Amino acid sequence: MASESLQDLYVEQLRDLYSAEQQILKALPKMIGKSRHAELKKALQEHERLTEKQVDRLDTIFNELGEKATGHKCKGMEGLLEEGDEVLKEFEDRDVLDAAIIASAQRVEHYEISGYGTARTFASMLGFDRHADLLQETLKEEGEADHLLTGLAERVINIDAMRAD
Amino acid sequence: MASESLQDLYVEQLRDLYSAEQQILKALPKMIGKSRHAELKKALQEHERLTEKQVDRLDTIFNELGEKATGHKCKGMEGLLEEGDEVLKEFEDRDVLDAAIIASAQRVEHYEISGYGTARTFASMLGFDRHADLLQETLKEEGEADHLLTGLAERVINIDAMRAD
Repeated sequence: MASESLQDLYVEQLRDLYSAEQQILKALPKMIGKSRHAELKKALQEHERLTEKQVDRLDTIFNELGEKATGHKCKGMEGLLEEGDEVLKEFEDRDVLDAAIIASAQRVEHYEISGYGTARTFASMLGFDRHADLLQETLKEEGEADHLLTGLAERVINIDAMRAD
Repeated sequence: MASESLQDLYVEQLRDLYSAEQQILKALPKMIGKSRHAELKKALQEHERLTEKQVDRLDTIFNELGEKATGHKCKGMEGLLEEGDEVLKEFEDRDVLDAAIIASAQRVEHYEISGYGTARTFASMLGFDRHADLLQETLKEEGEADHLLTGLAERVINIDAMRAD
């Protein structure tokens, strides 16, 4: 027996994530274009591909719920991407730019980790086991993407930034 | 030998976190006031106390760097708190409100986890070992606060929200 309230909040969280993913898909090409290290470019391109898969998963969930995916703008992601754009401009011509891009990208990842974690828990509680599995897959991918960027920063990008000037 | 570029980015990250913490301190009283479960109120009050300590740590770091803490507005946190406020309004009179507050609070925690993680790594690389220790302390507290909220949601808040209607 699903709680009406909790289900409403669940759908609100899913719409928020849907809007967040759409905004990320719009922002990624610029971040990829500005990245200097080939490894970072590749990591962000891979994230773009994953993001499309994650949107497909949300579409599947909305279809099963008989709910619309659209109609909510994720202001959290809007703020994060605006901030990312500012940092990109501030450090545009400097050797530390890739480190700045990673700092912004990891804030975006963490928004998703938090949002998908909440949505997956709600799905489990409401008995939507298949949704919970799909959301868990995305959550796992986001965690892996975050770790990959941390490794890249520590292993390559920050060290190059240190050497640069 | 510290990289000029990386140190600039480090200071920018610290200012961003300083602004984020100030915004959180302004937002918390409203979240505490609206919370219904005593355990959630207590967790958020504890977070308020910790946030003040975290600001003190940033002040110490800025003093040591001879840099100003102010002059940068964290747009990421601005967006997250605006979104939190919207969700609070949307679910104001409903039994699921505390679950909505936790969903927002965890997005805020994750912003800090990501931001402090980046700043701590930069501090280590730049040889600011004492800063790295202070930032690591905050990072640990944020991680614990996030887990505490997850536990509270799964153990109490979401279950009550399920029962409510």
